[in-house]
Amino acid sequence: MRTSQFPLHTVRETPADAEVISHRLMLRAGLIRKLAAGLYTWLPLGLRVLRRVEQIVREEMNRAGALEVAMPAVQPAELWQETGRWDQYGPELLRLRDRHQRDFCFGPTHEEIITDLARNELRSYKQLPINFYQIQTKFRDEIRPRFGVMRAREFLMKDAYSFHLDETSLAETYQAMFDTYCRIFQRCGLDFRPVLADTGSIGGHSSHEFHVLAASGEDAIAFSSDGDFAANVELAEAVTPDGNAPPPSEPLRLVDTPQARTIADLVEQYAQPIERTVKTLVVAASDAVESDLVALLVRGDHELNAIKAAKRPEVATPLRFATETEIRERIGAGPGSLGPRGLPIPVIADRAVAVLADFSAGANRDGQHWFGLNWGRDLPLPPVADLRNVVDGDPSPDGRGYLKIARGIEVGHIFQLGRKYSEAMKATVLGEDGKAVTLTMGCYGIGVSRVVAAAIEQHHDERGLCWPAPLAPFTVALLPMKRDKSFRVREATDRIYQDLKAAGIDVLLDDRDVRPGVMFADIELVGIPHRIVIGDKGLDAGTVEYKGRRDADPQFIPLDGVLPFLRERLAAGPTP
Amino acid sequence: MRTSQFPLHTVRETPADAEVISHRLMLRAGLIRKLAAGLYTWLPLGLRVLRRVEQIVREEMNRAGALEVAMPAVQPAELWQETGRWDQYGPELLRLRDRHQRDFCFGPTHEEIITDLARNELRSYKQLPINFYQIQTKFRDEIRPRFGVMRAREFLMKDAYSFHLDETSLAETYQAMFDTYCRIFQRCGLDFRPVLADTGSIGGHSSHEFHVLAASGEDAIAFSSDGDFAANVELAEAVTPDGNAPPPSEPLRLVDTPQARTIADLVEQYAQPIERTVKTLVVAASDAVESDLVALLVRGDHELNAIKAAKRPEVATPLRFATETEIRERIGAGPGSLGPRGLPIPVIADRAVAVLADFSAGANRDGQHWFGLNWGRDLPLPPVADLRNVVDGDPSPDGRGYLKIARGIEVGHIFQLGRKYSEAMKATVLGEDGKAVTLTMGCYGIGVSRVVAAAIEQHHDERGLCWPAPLAPFTVALLPMKRDKSFRVREATDRIYQDLKAAGIDVLLDDRDVRPGVMFADIELVGIPHRIVIGDKGLDAGTVEYKGRRDADPQFIPLDGVLPFLRERLAAGPTP
Repeated sequence: MRTSQFPLHTVRETPADAEVISHRLMLRAGLIRKLAAGLYTWLPLGLRVLRRVEQIVREEMNRAGALEVAMPAVQPAELWQETGRWDQYGPELLRLRDRHQRDFCFGPTHEEIITDLARNELRSYKQLPINFYQIQTKFRDEIRPRFGVMRAREFLMKDAYSFHLDETSLAETYQAMFDTYCRIFQRCGLDFRPVLADTGSIGGHSSHEFHVLAASGEDAIAFSSDGDFAANVELAEAVTPDGNAPPPSEPLRLVDTPQARTIADLVEQYAQPIERTVKTLVVAASDAVESDLVALLVRGDHELNAIKAAKRPEVATPLRFATETEIRERIGAGPGSLGPRGLPIPVIADRAVAVLADFSAGANRDGQHWFGLNWGRDLPLPPVADLRNVVDGDPSPDGRGYLKIARGIEVGHIFQLGRKYSEAMKATVLGEDGKAVTLTMGCYGIGVSRVVAAAIEQHHDERGLCWPAPLAPFTVALLPMKRDKSFRVREATDRIYQDLKAAGIDVLLDDRDVRPGVMFADIELVGIPHRIVIGDKGLDAGTVEYKGRRDADPQFIPLDGVLPFLRERLAAGPTP
Repeated sequence: MRTSQFPLHTVRETPADAEVISHRLMLRAGLIRKLAAGLYTWLPLGLRVLRRVEQIVREEMNRAGALEVAMPAVQPAELWQETGRWDQYGPELLRLRDRHQRDFCFGPTHEEIITDLARNELRSYKQLPINFYQIQTKFRDEIRPRFGVMRAREFLMKDAYSFHLDETSLAETYQAMFDTYCRIFQRCGLDFRPVLADTGSIGGHSSHEFHVLAASGEDAIAFSSDGDFAANVELAEAVTPDGNAPPPSEPLRLVDTPQARTIADLVEQYAQPIERTVKTLVVAASDAVESDLVALLVRGDHELNAIKAAKRPEVATPLRFATETEIRERIGAGPGSLGPRGLPIPVIADRAVAVLADFSAGANRDGQHWFGLNWGRDLPLPPVADLRNVVDGDPSPDGRGYLKIARGIEVGHIFQLGRKYSEAMKATVLGEDGKAVTLTMGCYGIGVSRVVAAAIEQHHDERGLCWPAPLAPFTVALLPMKRDKSFRVREATDRIYQDLKAAGIDVLLDDRDVRPGVMFADIELVGIPHRIVIGDKGLDAGTVEYKGRRDADPQFIPLDGVLPFLRERLAAGPTP
């Protein structure tokens, strides 16, 4: 391609409304343009990258034996009513009415449609297992679309759905998809982690997310320093500390703390070590206990994990924090002065709290705290549970090393759905014994357009994009200097261009009449991995200048050796 | 592929609601399944065909220098309001509201979106001409979706939009797209005609449709027996007959015709030759004449062409036929007894009517007709115009032979839009003189999913689909007989399968445990062009059986010569 036929749409200004680097760079490099909130047009350069991701996904899904289909984007409400999701799904579901006033939605996901297809097409256990997928435009009416294509309303997704006779078969396909996802993100050249995940509203009982590691990631993930363990921080277990609480070494004392309303106040004003303070968080109770409220204890330096807390039978779901009024009415003190000693409601302690000695907590009277509290001596140890988020340095739940916390961007998600949809929609096949068996399902998604943004978050520098080789829109850029003035430069450039094209290398020849500085800046901004500059000065010495996108300095290579040189560089894989 | 991994979804029953053969066969062969009215899921086999069409379209568009983009399907109403189409477009436009109650539509076409992109991205005449395209899911809320994917609501479309400094540049790209479309449909293996077309509601002033010829086509097209002329029947000119009207040979006479209310009655009851009868059709007049009604004369055996009639300045647009009440009030007779002699409203005669002699027409009195009418002698010749549809055998407007009428399925449409959208949306660039120039536009569509249905309408027989080679989902089918019982058959089949795969031939091995008759019927139904049967009997003689999908009889070929034999057949192109 030549830039005269494949124009670049780079811009110098950093758009004001772009918050994250991938969004800024995608706009500046001319990959996308905004049409409206959460709606983006992919320009030719961006679409080349998107198609590369799409192609890798398609090849690997086919390799795994999945069958590509194309379901309509517009879905009839009736099917969503069968599973109850028409009412459950919030305003993220873009609902619409056709000219006959029938209800439809613009599909954000396709469980209902594929289950309808399966119940019509699948008759016998002999047809199982089967795995259908599609690569399709989806719509989710995000309340606050942002970060460009990272959290757009319309986006390209690969969604796959597998059907099985039983859980064992599902587990096999789930593992195959897990492996396929690893291959896909490896082939994309991304540093990623598969992590244990919550199954959330989509249902089912086993799930992994695939996260591209990047400082700007919206999710925190925890992974083992030495083992394979990785999980969303929300899900990672904070293991029980070794041993019991040390014996008491301080007397219990009631201290007036008129200015201490938070743990930070306590630490600062009374020199209490934060890891020996206890936060008392009051939430609504479930019907399982004879109390309207329940108290949860976590260490002052720890965070309550809402998902873990909501899984306790004593706690109401969804988790709801008590209001100050509720707390005052029931306990007689404000939220800043609560503590486990003498608390008139059920209490649950985090594992890390259960091994504390000589700790401080509120006295359930405004402006007073207990210092030197000890379990057993001063108050009974309440029931103990894992209630907190893991932190960097916690022991890894797999027993191998410690946990590291990193930020990640979720680009894939796989679920063992079980029979949630097939039961609701009566999707069955005849089993070996001739009796109807409800299908068991898995589903597997990849945010194809989000992968592009995630790749950029992970691969960029101050000059612009630094594509992993498999995603680069072009592999090599040819930059002729003063092309209009030098026949020799034109001739050498065209020869290299033809040689590279003939060798099947994706090459972009910048034949614009612009200053060299503009050319260099543009080509670095759009992130083409290999750059060759052809100028009269080099040609005098029979050379051209080569520079890898990540290289510090250019090098001169013989004019006659460009193709072998590049072949070697390309075979060597991505520049470090 | 093996059918064990790529299952066929053939069904025996012909679905009740499928009216046309392509719809029936697509359902029976398992290419598509209906989700709801006008919404179809493409099953793996159908999607392979759809992707082949898509790939041919993409390759040829790229070859023509067009740049692929991907615009959102969901479009903000504001842009449609700028061009006025938000109000003009009928209920075919699927309108929707997002969670913030903002108006959007699911795009049926993208003129507004691309023009918005162009006005933001294009600054200078140096960036012109430029041609953007996308291959995308569109939605048109048809009042009566039918014929399967032929007239679906959601469908796959290739839409392209070009931008130019002037009409000359537009004409060049228009011609390039014309040639590209011819190459695309040729490469698809289709018998097609580019035809002159009406520009309709999309606007602009030059347009061609591309029709796949098929008896079931919704459109009638006229093309020259000897020349290149081809046009939608609605648009083809009925040329002025040679010479003048013959001299009168009959006396004028008023005849009581109490039972004659139609031309057919007149022909049957009074032995009038139909080609010497005249129909008088009364329509609403425009402001250009001092009358509320205007009469249009066409020969009894001809049809009024509403588009041509509406182009006459005397006639109101859109064309509206007068009611019987209006006619009686104004003329004093019913619609079955009208004629040009003594008619108190303006009259326009079709060219074929102007050269009649001794013709019959109503007398403007109920139950009476004039026979033996002659222009000049009995009544003055009114203004003459081309008012009728051409018929088979009419002279061709290009002077080369005569017109043939065929049915066609519209699969492509190209338009010279001019400045309709760019003016409304103020899309300009700076011209060579530094002054703003409004962009000139062309647009170019292909109904990608409709091409699949059209190909089937043209290529099928009583046993099923007969794909043109470039669209076939698989090129060769391998059918092992009693595979489960014969090691030799399994071995020979697997060897051929591996050989063909290694040679890059798309092969489907039917490894199902089904009767040979079921296998034969399925493979013919899905229309795989080449079939090889491997059985013990043939292997005894060192042969396998080959049959082309269109061949009357199979032939035996040496087991060792399968690949060279197939290579020769494939190189020879489609079977006749």
